[in-house]
Amino acid sequence: MAGLPRSIPVSSKPIITLTSDFGLDDAYVGVMKGVILGINPDVTLVDICHTIEPQNIQQAAFVLSTAIPYFPQDTIHLVVVDPGVGGARRPIILETDRAIFVAPDNGVLSYVVHAASSKRISKPTLMRLPPPLQAFEIAKPTYWHHPVSTTFHGRDIFAPIAAHISLGRPLEELGQSISSINVLPLPKPRTDARGNITGHVVHIDHFGNLITSIARGDLPPGSYSIRVAGHRIRSLSRSYEDGQGLLALIGSSGHLEIALKEGSAARLLGSKPGDEVHIIRRQSGQAREQSGAWVHCA
Amino acid sequence: MAGLPRSIPVSSKPIITLTSDFGLDDAYVGVMKGVILGINPDVTLVDICHTIEPQNIQQAAFVLSTAIPYFPQDTIHLVVVDPGVGGARRPIILETDRAIFVAPDNGVLSYVVHAASSKRISKPTLMRLPPPLQAFEIAKPTYWHHPVSTTFHGRDIFAPIAAHISLGRPLEELGQSISSINVLPLPKPRTDARGNITGHVVHIDHFGNLITSIARGDLPPGSYSIRVAGHRIRSLSRSYEDGQGLLALIGSSGHLEIALKEGSAARLLGSKPGDEVHIIRRQSGQAREQSGAWVHCA
Amino acid sequence: MAGLPRSIPVSSKPIITLTSDFGLDDAYVGVMKGVILGINPDVTLVDICHTIEPQNIQQAAFVLSTAIPYFPQDTIHLVVVDPGVGGARRPIILETDRAIFVAPDNGVLSYVVHAASSKRISKPTLMRLPPPLQAFEIAKPTYWHHPVSTTFHGRDIFAPIAAHISLGRPLEELGQSISSINVLPLPKPRTDARGNITGHVVHIDHFGNLITSIARGDLPPGSYSIRVAGHRIRSLSRSYEDGQGLLALIGSSGHLEIALKEGSAARLLGSKPGDEVHIIRRQSGQAREQSGAWVHCA
Repeated sequence: MAGLPRSIPVSSKPIITLTSDFGLDDAYVGVMKGVILGINPDVTLVDICHTIEPQNIQQAAFVLSTAIPYFPQDTIHLVVVDPGVGGARRPIILETDRAIFVAPDNGVLSYVVHAASSKRISKPTLMRLPPPLQAFEIAKPTYWHHPVSTTFHGRDIFAPIAAHISLGRPLEELGQSISSINVLPLPKPRTDARGNITGHVVHIDHFGNLITSIARGDLPPGSYSIRVAGHRIRSLSRSYEDGQGLLALIGSSGHLEIALKEGSAARLLGSKPGDEVHIIRRQSGQAREQSGAWVHCA
Repeated sequence: MAGLPRSIPVSSKPIITLTSDFGLDDAYVGVMKGVILGINPDVTLVDICHTIEPQNIQQAAFVLSTAIPYFPQDTIHLVVVDPGVGGARRPIILETDRAIFVAPDNGVLSYVVHAASSKRISKPTLMRLPPPLQAFEIAKPTYWHHPVSTTFHGRDIFAPIAAHISLGRPLEELGQSISSINVLPLPKPRTDARGNITGHVVHIDHFGNLITSIARGDLPPGSYSIRVAGHRIRSLSRSYEDGQGLLALIGSSGHLEIALKEGSAARLLGSKPGDEVHIIRRQSGQAREQSGAWVHCA
Repeated sequence: MAGLPRSIPVSSKPIITLTSDFGLDDAYVGVMKGVILGINPDVTLVDICHTIEPQNIQQAAFVLSTAIPYFPQDTIHLVVVDPGVGGARRPIILETDRAIFVAPDNGVLSYVVHAASSKRISKPTLMRLPPPLQAFEIAKPTYWHHPVSTTFHGRDIFAPIAAHISLGRPLEELGQSISSINVLPLPKPRTDARGNITGHVVHIDHFGNLITSIARGDLPPGSYSIRVAGHRIRSLSRSYEDGQGLLALIGSSGHLEIALKEGSAARLLGSKPGDEVHIIRRQSGQAREQSGAWVHCA
């Protein structure tokens, strides 16, 4: 596909989603929408989240990753969590076989790149894009909103570029092809010699559920218990209403979650992103009569 | 109408409203919109409220009830306050002569049923639907988003069903007709032998106004005063700027409200939902010279 | 243009923006949208901000002013910050050569009037509108939502009027032409005999940036330092990531802002709207060797 002019089909009703750390107490989000509608009045705008913690790129990357699979083919995702605005970081367009992203090149698209790559990194890396991903450095001021400020590229660069993409304009016309972008390491669980797993809380949602880095597929076969903040959970629940008190379950993002029935696990445990969560496997030497105390996955 | 295939007219530009306790700090609301737009890109989406207190069915039912009358004929209301997700509660569609509701069968549609019924209940009841109401248990996985999680039916069941309804698909095709749904008792004021009324605060709005269970039509004829949290209010104001200090007036939902001029009544009084509000009628034996101290409604 | 029937072109896809102090915890905003869509299902609705401090007309006027320039020609701006609802204040339509505003006549459109006028006022004034501005007192109940409450004109008067304007209905049909509206003085910086400037914080944004009344064009030539809350800032940064600690820069609204690199200036300084910010010019007698300590603008 390289070398071919790429653009989204103009016949569809294009969708632009918006994710930012702008909050809801200013006109910043509305202003980006005004700029977009001035270029393409027929676009459908959808807010993903605007209360990302100021300048928290990791959190934005995670929240965005939970939304991407549920939007239609060719959705354009505008992501403006941009502590480096006005500095050297590049504004970019990233295209996958499913969606197009417009964002600063600061790692906020890391989950998108990791989903397409088997390469694992342990520190922030300028990473060569695996096919079919393609990226462009936004570089043609013709398509920006002028005068361009040094403090609000969401309004002056990212929003107009997303709007022009929604009009079907080829990405090559909006930027310069690049082969690598900045990627942050994913929070991945570690497994020790005995098969015990240490993961981390990556996000705490509005209900106070702790969403962890431990995916469904990371869980070991056999029996195990879950330890978090000094508590032990001995079974996997099927849903938030299955069980009593502190629960562990596979949540809607496919990750292990710690929840409190009719309450906030985060408040009960005093948890915050980065806190450890442990999966402790049952050792074969452990007494059989205790087996009720362990999760058993066939 | 029973037995006839029912669907909304496909010619109109359909509206889906969204009410939930998902908050605004996650992608949950955006995800439901993505799922809907993937099925019907031409729908108009309107947020009612997403900051319902987690799992507070009563509050969601009330807030929704204040919005319904102001939406056009055939609006589809998607309501996801669903503490029982993944458990035994049924996902349902409820149709009135004005709108269609998609929600868990947990009482969140109680105001809708009460508005069509003269039956009064004093405890949660599986209530036979009065005509012209019709309900369907959502039961055809063909129209769901797969894989269906056990924790996010808003995304996997309710949102896709609302989208299919907006496409004009007959409700019979999406679910199984049912004759009863779960209904909560409405908070109704009590009147004692002397004609005095005891109502409750059902909602505190963003301004700190106390919205009570006492409707305009519940107010007694003649003179009365209003007592709330140790304060007495002796006249009904016409608007928030009519009078001084603590005011009582009929608010925009048609219910008695307690407000504080240029301030928050809830903060001043330390009030919360459930608190009592009293209407004290003037007794005939009371001295005439005090009559200025009483509300008089001709 | 006076005397000619005025309306927006019906061919465009009309936009209505919404600004209010209604917050997000009630159905109030959704209800206004329902009313609008009932009249014009083809309008595009954009939220500017709904978390204006209750009844803070000055703040609403400022936040709105930062959004107006970024919306397309003929956008309709609905502004409902309305402490006088139900009282004597007039509901009005204000038309500029760029946009149409629907709001209470309480000063919330002050920036719009000031942008078209060279007249300066020092106290709230019923101000004659400079051309090409035209205003109308909303006065034809035919176009309102009935019954009209005394407490929610956003729903019953302003929203339906905005919707009818979006349908291309002439403004003369919706109201009575008026020549003056209520305008508040803009917070303007003062310059003393030595050329030093005293401005004020007019808004604190979500990031804790202090946005001041000092516009780019107000800054003096030559060298100066900036004093705020006992701190001195000696250079103008180009962006939020240019420099260390407390920064001063021209923000995206064209005004001087005080920011804290990777933090909240408002929290660090304990600042609030109304606080003073000083520009201290370098006196010619000051030692040359100190010049590094001063901003110098060529």
